[in-house]
Amino acid sequence: MYDVNAIRAEFPILSREVNGKPLVYLDNGASAQKPQCVIDAVTRAYAEEYANVHRGLHYLSNLATEKYEGVRGTVARFLGAPSEDEIVMTSGTTEGINLVAYGWAMPRIEPGDEIVLSVMEHHANIVPWHFLRERHGAVLKWVDVDATGALDPQAVIDAIGPKTKLVAVTHLSNVLGTKVDVQAICAGARAKGVPVLVDGSQGAVHMPVNLSELGCDFYAITGHKLYGPSGSGAIWIARERMEEMRPFIGGGDMIREVHKDSVTYADPPMKFEAGTPGIVQQIGLGVALEWLMDLGMEAVAAHEDRLRDYAVSRLGGLNWLSVQGTTPDKAAIFSFTMEGAAHAHDISTILDKKGVAVRAGQHCTGPLMEFLGTPATCRASFGLYNTEGEVDALVDALELAHELFA
Amino acid sequence: MYDVNAIRAEFPILSREVNGKPLVYLDNGASAQKPQCVIDAVTRAYAEEYANVHRGLHYLSNLATEKYEGVRGTVARFLGAPSEDEIVMTSGTTEGINLVAYGWAMPRIEPGDEIVLSVMEHHANIVPWHFLRERHGAVLKWVDVDATGALDPQAVIDAIGPKTKLVAVTHLSNVLGTKVDVQAICAGARAKGVPVLVDGSQGAVHMPVNLSELGCDFYAITGHKLYGPSGSGAIWIARERMEEMRPFIGGGDMIREVHKDSVTYADPPMKFEAGTPGIVQQIGLGVALEWLMDLGMEAVAAHEDRLRDYAVSRLGGLNWLSVQGTTPDKAAIFSFTMEGAAHAHDISTILDKKGVAVRAGQHCTGPLMEFLGTPATCRASFGLYNTEGEVDALVDALELAHELFA
Repeated sequence: MYDVNAIRAEFPILSREVNGKPLVYLDNGASAQKPQCVIDAVTRAYAEEYANVHRGLHYLSNLATEKYEGVRGTVARFLGAPSEDEIVMTSGTTEGINLVAYGWAMPRIEPGDEIVLSVMEHHANIVPWHFLRERHGAVLKWVDVDATGALDPQAVIDAIGPKTKLVAVTHLSNVLGTKVDVQAICAGARAKGVPVLVDGSQGAVHMPVNLSELGCDFYAITGHKLYGPSGSGAIWIARERMEEMRPFIGGGDMIREVHKDSVTYADPPMKFEAGTPGIVQQIGLGVALEWLMDLGMEAVAAHEDRLRDYAVSRLGGLNWLSVQGTTPDKAAIFSFTMEGAAHAHDISTILDKKGVAVRAGQHCTGPLMEFLGTPATCRASFGLYNTEGEVDALVDALELAHELFA
Repeated sequence: MYDVNAIRAEFPILSREVNGKPLVYLDNGASAQKPQCVIDAVTRAYAEEYANVHRGLHYLSNLATEKYEGVRGTVARFLGAPSEDEIVMTSGTTEGINLVAYGWAMPRIEPGDEIVLSVMEHHANIVPWHFLRERHGAVLKWVDVDATGALDPQAVIDAIGPKTKLVAVTHLSNVLGTKVDVQAICAGARAKGVPVLVDGSQGAVHMPVNLSELGCDFYAITGHKLYGPSGSGAIWIARERMEEMRPFIGGGDMIREVHKDSVTYADPPMKFEAGTPGIVQQIGLGVALEWLMDLGMEAVAAHEDRLRDYAVSRLGGLNWLSVQGTTPDKAAIFSFTMEGAAHAHDISTILDKKGVAVRAGQHCTGPLMEFLGTPATCRASFGLYNTEGEVDALVDALELAHELFA
C-alpha cells in the first residue's frame, strides 16, 4: 500500500508554507525535494564520518571510502546494471553526457559523421553534440515527434545512416512527459552497429529501469532529481565502450603513474573520476536510491500514473488550456500554455502566489519549443510525494490566473 | 585573540574518538573538517529552502538562486578578486584547471608550444597539461625546487621562452608546504606576455590571498579544503582570459539560444557553468568563507605559523626522521620518511592506531616524489583547529612507530 501521506511526512520542506500558503511543489522536473534520511546521511557524513577518500589509510578515510564506493553498487542495483565497475560517478547527467562526448565521441568523430537526436532532447543532450559540430564537423540529425509528442522508434532507427556514429535520446521528455521506447531504438541501432546514449535524467525518476534489458551503451542519471543531494549523479557505460574511451577530466585518482614526460591511467571506472569526488553528496545519493528501492519504483510509477490520470481529467476540463504532450502512457509532467495574452512567466507568478511552484520557460529544450511553435510553456511536474489534492490546487490556481488574464 | 579551543568546539567531528583514542586530525591537506555553521547551512538548504536555481520563478527557486548567486560575491571578497563576474563556480580545483586546459589552452596550443610547471605540482595541475601533450603536441617544461623545497621565481621566469603559452604553478605545495612567490612569477611572466594559472587549492587555505595584487590570470580553489562541503569550489578568471575562452561543459544554463543547427552561449561567467550546479554545496562554501573571513585569514595564518614553528622544533628532535621541505616560511605541512625499513603506509597505520590521522603515499605528486627520490612519504598537514598538544600527540605516535620498526 502506497501511503502518500506517510511519504510526505518524510520530507521536511513539504510542510512549509510559501507566500502564506501551503507549498504545492510541482517543480520536480527541475529538482526533487529530499527525504529526512538523505538529509541525515549528509549531516552525519560531515559531523561524524568525514575525510577524503581513496588515498588515506586512516580510520575516517577508510570509512568514507567504504561508504562512497558502496554507492557504486547501489547505483548498479538501482539501474539493473550488469556490474558496478561500469558505474562512473558524476555531478549529474550534464557531466555524464559531456564525458561521453569528450571521452568517447570526440576522438572518433570525422567531419560529416552524424549524431541522431530527437527533437525533444534537453540542452544537456544537445549542446555537447553542438560542440562536436562546431569543432569537428559533426552533423546533428533530428527526429521529430508526432502531434501527441510520441517518438516513433522506427523513425529514429531509419535516421541512422552509414555516417551515424551515435544515437542520443532521452528516456522521458522533461517537457512533454513522453516515454521513449528506448529498447526498440537500441535493438534497431545495434543491428546497424551504432551505440545509443540514453539521457535518463527524468526516466530513472519516474519508472523502473533495467539496463540488462534496455540494450543501450550509456545511461546517465542525475542525483538531485532522484531525491538525492545536489551535485550527485552517475553514468553507466557498457564495458566495451569504456574500453574505447580516453579520459576526460585530468587530475588525481584517475592515474596509475604520472612522470614528467608520460602518464598512464587507472582502469575504468576510476579512469573517468578525477580529483576528490563529491564524497558526501554521492553518499547521500546512495541513501536516496536505497530509499527509492525500498518504496519500489513500480509502486512509485503506479502512484504517479494515478496522479497523471487524475490531472489529465482535471486539466482536460479547462478548455482555455493547451497541454503539450498527450501520449496515453506519459509521465505526470504537464506543459501548457493558456489561451489569450498570458505569458508562461506571468502564469507561474500567479500560481506562486497561491503556493503552487511550477516552472516557466524553455525548460532547456530550445529545439522542442521551436517544434511546438511557442517561446515558452508553463510546466507542472509531479513527483512521488504529490497528491490528487495538489492537482486540485493547481487547477484552482490556473482558474484564478485565467480569470485575471481573461 | 585566537581561541583555538572555542574554534575546535565548532567542529563536531573533532570531539569524536577513533580506535579508542581522541581524533588528532592531521589530514587537512587532503580535506578539512566542517564547522557546525556549514553543516547547518547544508541541512537548512535541503530541509527548508531547496529548489533548482536560475530557471524558476517561484518563491523557493528565487530564494535558492539568491543564496547560490550570493556565493559568487563571497568568493570574490575572499580572494580579493576585482569582480564577482570573474568567478566561475566549479566542483573544485580539478574541474577549474580542466576548464582552463580545455576552454582556454586547447584551442590555442600548437605542436611544440610549451607549458611551464614546477616539479612540485599536484596531479590536478599536471594531468590536464599531459592531455595537451598527448593530444596536441604540447611540451611540458619543468622547473625544479632547491634542496629546501624552495622555488626560485626567476628560474620559472627564465624557463619562459618564445613558445611558452602558459605558466601553471601552485601557490603552496601540498607536500612540502613551500609557499611560492607567485607575485614575482606573475610580474616576470606578464613582462613576457605569458598568462599564469595558480593552483590555489592549498594556498587559499593557509594564507590571505589578494588577487588584485597577485597579478595572475587564473586562480583555482577547492571548497572542501576550505572547511566547506565536498564538491564545492570556484576559479577566478581574469576578464580578458574569459573573453578568449570557449565553453567547456555543454548543457543548460550556459547557453543563450539553442537551435537544431546552431547554438549561442551566455556571457561569462554563466558560459562556463553548465547544468544544475552544486547548489547546496556552493551555498555551504559561501558560509565557510564568511566564517573564515570572520576569523580572519591573517589570524589563521599566524596560528598555523605558530604550529609550524612548534612542529619544526619537535620534529627536529627526532634524528631518525627526515622531513621534506624546510623553507623557513613554509606552511604547517610536514612530509617525512623514517630511517630504516618502515614504509610510509606502515607508519600511517601505526599513527592511526593512536588516533592520529595522516596520509601516506605520493600525495598526487608523482614528479615531486621522483625528484625527492622516494616512492612515498607520510604527511601531517595542519589546519586552523589544530593545537600544539596535537603536535605532541604526533611526535608520541611517531616515537612509538620508530620503536616498533627499529
